[in-house]
Amino acid sequence: MENDEIKFWSKVSHRIIEEAQEVISPLVGQRKAGEIVKMGADGTPTKLIDQVAEERVIEVLEGVGKPLTLISEEIGQLKIDEGPSEVFLVIDPLDGTSNAVKNIPVYGISVAVAKKPDSGGSMTTDQVEMGFVKNFATGDIYTASRGQGADLNGKKISSSLKNDLTTASIGAYIHRAHIGRMEKLCKMVRRMRIMGAVAIEVCYVADGTYDAFLDVRGNLRIVDVSAAKLIVEEAGGVVTDGNCQAFRGNLDVVDRTSIIASGNKNIQQEIMNILGGI
Amino acid sequence: MENDEIKFWSKVSHRIIEEAQEVISPLVGQRKAGEIVKMGADGTPTKLIDQVAEERVIEVLEGVGKPLTLISEEIGQLKIDEGPSEVFLVIDPLDGTSNAVKNIPVYGISVAVAKKPDSGGSMTTDQVEMGFVKNFATGDIYTASRGQGADLNGKKISSSLKNDLTTASIGAYIHRAHIGRMEKLCKMVRRMRIMGAVAIEVCYVADGTYDAFLDVRGNLRIVDVSAAKLIVEEAGGVVTDGNCQAFRGNLDVVDRTSIIASGNKNIQQEIMNILGGI
Repeated sequence: MENDEIKFWSKVSHRIIEEAQEVISPLVGQRKAGEIVKMGADGTPTKLIDQVAEERVIEVLEGVGKPLTLISEEIGQLKIDEGPSEVFLVIDPLDGTSNAVKNIPVYGISVAVAKKPDSGGSMTTDQVEMGFVKNFATGDIYTASRGQGADLNGKKISSSLKNDLTTASIGAYIHRAHIGRMEKLCKMVRRMRIMGAVAIEVCYVADGTYDAFLDVRGNLRIVDVSAAKLIVEEAGGVVTDGNCQAFRGNLDVVDRTSIIASGNKNIQQEIMNILGGI
Repeated sequence: MENDEIKFWSKVSHRIIEEAQEVISPLVGQRKAGEIVKMGADGTPTKLIDQVAEERVIEVLEGVGKPLTLISEEIGQLKIDEGPSEVFLVIDPLDGTSNAVKNIPVYGISVAVAKKPDSGGSMTTDQVEMGFVKNFATGDIYTASRGQGADLNGKKISSSLKNDLTTASIGAYIHRAHIGRMEKLCKMVRRMRIMGAVAIEVCYVADGTYDAFLDVRGNLRIVDVSAAKLIVEEAGGVVTDGNCQAFRGNLDVVDRTSIIASGNKNIQQEIMNILGGI
């Protein structure tokens, strides 16, 4: 992306983030926030607080005045404004919905800006040019622009250089799945967390809060981690699928995947050695 | 405890909480906060931020002007002021140390006030009369006084009535241990969290944020959960050891235990059915 495009879409993204936060804030910790209002385009139930967040995101985008395509969990794909749209916004309006409903202080938003290549072709995570992930509860915001590194609250961050799993802190989702493949790893690591907000936790790898994050259950939405993937990579980390192969998902709400985000190649290799084959 | 005693020790406890928060705040998210400065009385390494918190707690207690005994992770047992002390303060000056060091927003303090029975005998969790647990990152404070219910931020709370594990949210510590006994439960529950701050997470059972919290690894310090246990019970929940037997630990820093805190008796029974025997 050109510099002026980066500036423009960065401004749009920050606007989306602010407005989504404003509209969900009164609902945080409220029982009604968790009421199911419809089925989302991804086939899972939409809660009131998700709907409110997404509706505000759409309002903001309708005011942008440029053609664009929104890809979001509840609505699926939505073309906004006339004309050919080169820019795709891949948004999870509320990462960690259940935490927001329960007032567990790890919930926020994920915004990825992707640009259609001149050659056409399908839109994948490779086309993501910018990423924004904010934890609304703390105000922490992770940002990255392709080739320009990653920031936390405006300060450059870099991922962990640790390669010893026995002293590592990892995020690892293991519930509602067969634990078998994860058991050795869980037994070995120094610290393990499940905070319940995937985009934020993938970003924890970008600034070394986690040495690695894994969700190898095969059920993760691409939209949820499109921004965080870029943020980790720009911070020096490595993001792969559940088999340590290239993570390259289509930018849609239906595809499901696994993710291993690692602070560095060495700990990624250690993880793969422990996990073994699928 | 008499009403005036409750008022007095409540004031002391709130003072401890404020001062500990003040002194640790500048260290949150700082690498040096995690430096190991000595070995604690419980046999585990003490980090700078733990030491700073405990030292301030001791300063506050030295100013109370009444004889008392402090029981705390780093210092073990400390008699303060002359004369026979009837009151024991069981304090974890920093619950979730690693989160505080990494700026993960779930860390705080646990203060339990226990009173020696007139008949003498050993001090156990049964003697805890008041409990205070605060998440410094959010400001949320859980409090309870025996027989008078439990509060979150001054409002009465009650634990979850849910008894269906397949729709339940639980906290469950499973890392650095054999997962075997937990596997069925992990596979079954709707949501699972590991936030990394035990006192706060046990309190999550008191207000229904969690339907249950388990750490059945046998390595939990009594001091860490003395306050939270009372808070859950006063909110209507049930707290047992890892075998669903009475949770009744000695108030010292050496004894280790397991805990199952449940929103109600029915879900506790469900959990026990799933976990099976030890």
